Amino acid sequence: MTYCVGILLDEGVVLASDSRTNAGIDRVSTFRKMFTFEKRDDRFFTMLTAGNLSLTQGVISLLGEWLNTEDPDQDLFAVDSMFGAARVIGKALRQVHKTDAGYLQQQDVDFSASFILAGQVRGGKLRLFQVYDAGNFIEAMGDTTYFQIGEVKYGKPILDRIIRRETSLIDAAKCALISFDSTMRSNVSVGPPIDLMIYKRDTLEPGFTIRLEEDDPYWQTIREGWGDAIHKAFDNIGQDPGWKI
Amino acid sequence: MTYCVGILLDEGVVLASDSRTNAGIDRVSTFRKMFTFEKRDDRFFTMLTAGNLSLTQGVISLLGEWLNTEDPDQDLFAVDSMFGAARVIGKALRQVHKTDAGYLQQQDVDFSASFILAGQVRGGKLRLFQVYDAGNFIEAMGDTTYFQIGEVKYGKPILDRIIRRETSLIDAAKCALISFDSTMRSNVSVGPPIDLMIYKRDTLEPGFTIRLEEDDPYWQTIREGWGDAIHKAFDNIGQDPGWKI
Repeated sequence: MTYCVGILLDEGVVLASDSRTNAGIDRVSTFRKMFTFEKRDDRFFTMLTAGNLSLTQGVISLLGEWLNTEDPDQDLFAVDSMFGAARVIGKALRQVHKTDAGYLQQQDVDFSASFILAGQVRGGKLRLFQVYDAGNFIEAMGDTTYFQIGEVKYGKPILDRIIRRETSLIDAAKCALISFDSTMRSNVSVGPPIDLMIYKRDTLEPGFTIRLEEDDPYWQTIREGWGDAIHKAFDNIGQDPGWKI
Repeated sequence: MTYCVGILLDEGVVLASDSRTNAGIDRVSTFRKMFTFEKRDDRFFTMLTAGNLSLTQGVISLLGEWLNTEDPDQDLFAVDSMFGAARVIGKALRQVHKTDAGYLQQQDVDFSASFILAGQVRGGKLRLFQVYDAGNFIEAMGDTTYFQIGEVKYGKPILDRIIRRETSLIDAAKCALISFDSTMRSNVSVGPPIDLMIYKRDTLEPGFTIRLEEDDPYWQTIREGWGDAIHKAFDNIGQDPGWKI
């Protein structure tokens, strides 16, 4: 499985992904699920990937091959907007599907993928998209501040309670890590290290990135601190319902 | 959808169920999903139900018809153990399947159900079971302190963090309500009122039951208090990761 989250804020964007993949419970490996394409001072795109690994790797490879072809229908360095970039990803996904899906269907393999795309093109706004398996996509706007892909449910309540557009980048990163902790405690197929990226709006240069291994001190602080904090919070509310049990 | 949880503790058992059902997004109704069969000083069984409503109602009706037939293979008042009671429920489920499943398959209707069963028979221990759609079942023992059915993921992290065998009945009820709050915020097809039952081990008499409507003061205290408490807990941990973003 996989868990990835992308959070769009006034200050910028926070992206995080786990790195566990499994083909059956006895074939577990570590693969990066965060990929960046960037031209400093001009554009940056970061993608998070979930789904069939050969499919997501195929898409990332295609996007790499299409770079510098100067065709805005397929070259991320040639598109003139984030909308165009999302379309290129959808196109790559459809192409890999077209090539391989028939063969995998014959073997009854689940061959689907989804992506979170964040990025900014000079002259345009920082934008956040979720690209579905069919190559169509939606954009975070208005009240929607984040997208999740993969194992999304365990880690959603904390995002809903904390994240607002005006949340700081550091707080959003902290909230993303708590969301990962809740997910990893319930689904062993989501696992460390966690790749985290923080991009400040309008900087058009690579964001801050860090790979949090299991023994990272800050990650440890969050995991242990959150468990303790939840217990204290729990003890402090609604002690006496007044029921005669 | 549905959300039900049953928690087995040293002191007794806590059971909770929502009461929203929907056949499509435009047909939403309120149905009780908690059912009790009891003979004071001798036995009590409480069931929580999830799945196709005609199927779960069929099972509960059959169990009612089978009462006082004095056949321990189908009469909950005649079984001599909780294991026997779980088998009776499995049998009723298989019987309704046998009668109706073929017809519903033809119309492509999802016809599955699952149950949580808690109860105690004089001379035996308080026990907690989860009965699957095939009529087979598992029992909570050792490290397993709770079972969930229906929309289980959103409300699981808080149970994992708080519930231990030695947790008090009141604390477990509070934790169940927080778990419902997290679930209802994310899935509108889980909804109030919430039926809650607290049974004290070895009493062999009806447990404390309450139906929490949306405006119940304690439920309001939990909902609002938990939101505030989570924010405070969040602010208090891991303020400075020491990253140069």
